[in-house]
Amino acid sequence: MEKEDKKILIVGLGLLGMSLAMAFRKTGIQVMGFNRHRDAVEYGIREGILLPESEEMLETLLAKADVVFLALPIPATVEFLEKYAGCFKKGAVVTDLNSTKSAFMNKAEEVLPPQNVFYVGSHPMAGTEKSGYENAFETLYDNADVFICAADFEAPEVRIIEELWQSISCKTVRITKEKHDNLVARTSHVAHILASALTISVLGYEDKFDNFAGCAGGFRDTSRTASSNPVMWKEIIENNRDAVLKAMDYFECEYSKFRKIIEENRFDDFEHEFAIGRNLREEWLQYMENKKGNKKK
Amino acid sequence: MEKEDKKILIVGLGLLGMSLAMAFRKTGIQVMGFNRHRDAVEYGIREGILLPESEEMLETLLAKADVVFLALPIPATVEFLEKYAGCFKKGAVVTDLNSTKSAFMNKAEEVLPPQNVFYVGSHPMAGTEKSGYENAFETLYDNADVFICAADFEAPEVRIIEELWQSISCKTVRITKEKHDNLVARTSHVAHILASALTISVLGYEDKFDNFAGCAGGFRDTSRTASSNPVMWKEIIENNRDAVLKAMDYFECEYSKFRKIIEENRFDDFEHEFAIGRNLREEWLQYMENKKGNKKK
Repeated sequence: MEKEDKKILIVGLGLLGMSLAMAFRKTGIQVMGFNRHRDAVEYGIREGILLPESEEMLETLLAKADVVFLALPIPATVEFLEKYAGCFKKGAVVTDLNSTKSAFMNKAEEVLPPQNVFYVGSHPMAGTEKSGYENAFETLYDNADVFICAADFEAPEVRIIEELWQSISCKTVRITKEKHDNLVARTSHVAHILASALTISVLGYEDKFDNFAGCAGGFRDTSRTASSNPVMWKEIIENNRDAVLKAMDYFECEYSKFRKIIEENRFDDFEHEFAIGRNLREEWLQYMENKKGNKKK
Repeated sequence: MEKEDKKILIVGLGLLGMSLAMAFRKTGIQVMGFNRHRDAVEYGIREGILLPESEEMLETLLAKADVVFLALPIPATVEFLEKYAGCFKKGAVVTDLNSTKSAFMNKAEEVLPPQNVFYVGSHPMAGTEKSGYENAFETLYDNADVFICAADFEAPEVRIIEELWQSISCKTVRITKEKHDNLVARTSHVAHILASALTISVLGYEDKFDNFAGCAGGFRDTSRTASSNPVMWKEIIENNRDAVLKAMDYFECEYSKFRKIIEENRFDDFEHEFAIGRNLREEWLQYMENKKGNKKK
């Protein structure tokens, strides 16, 4: 089956879903799209992002789709699979874009196999603190790493999903769902908790006007993810509770080291520790740069 | 004394000092500049940012300057005041750009008064994680709040410094040095410690390649200030130790609240708490927007 022959359906046309449709359009592929609120579908068809047949009923779209991307909140994804498991085309490959994988994929694997549908978990490391199709843009996924989780990496369906991500300039990384969840708890989920706790501790007390004036670019960036959607983040943290608590232990270990150094007036150690953080971050920035460079070649 | 008549000298032509000279030049004022490494001075003169007389000896420049901005690291500022207190022009107004005020201004007030020089503390809430004149740019201070600390706010010299900041589109905010130090510990210094501790806890363990792939825009922003200069941040934290520890208490209080909520599976409370952070941050962003709007009028 050639990529061009496959009919793709994106369910959920918010920031992630609509941006994905835009990214496919940029490569010359128009996809079908479904969204509960119809304004997103109308917008997508009007702008030539979605195929006109996106106006059809969900069941009709599902029956035609060879590949389905579920770009829904976590609980809605589970509900969707439970409700529509019987509507997928036989042999379809289904994937999601969710930030946690274990709890969710266990459910997917429980509901789907009897329907002869193959499930692959995707997690593109892309997003902003905004949501909604109004904030979608076609370069959201450019150069993004996409984690791929599957019960069996040897299955040909895994390659189909990987190639689709690669076609919009993403880099796919295979990982077990357990390892994935521990990883994103550390790289993303804890950062959101820190941003929110910092914001409240900085702006929520004492003289509001002075607090406002005392915040500049450093605060703006460190706190950015505190502006993310509270409902979505509740769902993510809830679905990844144990890994998040473990990741918080990691963070607290480093944080306590800094606190002890300051309490004990060991400021040369502070400089040393801070330099370790800077070097690690520079190494990561270099990795990100190289990825862009490799793509251009 | 009209603003235009005053001779201004900036000592230290790194990111902050050179950007300040550029900002003054944009308003039509050319200033004198001094830097220990001469390449910055040569660059400034060649680009028309600095007056050609900046080539002269430091003692000559100090004898001519009505207003001196010290844009040096904290220990270097103290050393400078100790060494050159006798070289300032009689009646000169001296200010600094340092991030902490108490420890430092106590020293300045001890060294300077007998020389008939007036000292005002400035702290512009502007900067990037970069340093050096190569990274300077003329809009660094645009719309920035600048905290002004003085032993006596009634002194006319305070107005001179305030008007100079206002002339480059900054908003000045008067504050006691003690209150200032507590404030910036919360709004800035703790954020740097969090960014560094997060970076190490995310990138410093387990599989480096997976860690790199697992970091995206959220991590990039939350960790940005971890790329700041370790020597500078050692000096800042050392000079503001007590206020930083107090600010860490504030942060820890909020962070522990989040941790407890997750441990006790109270995810509706998580959503509520996260929404508080988001609302506070949106209010602050609105404050920043209004400031820009007011300036344009």
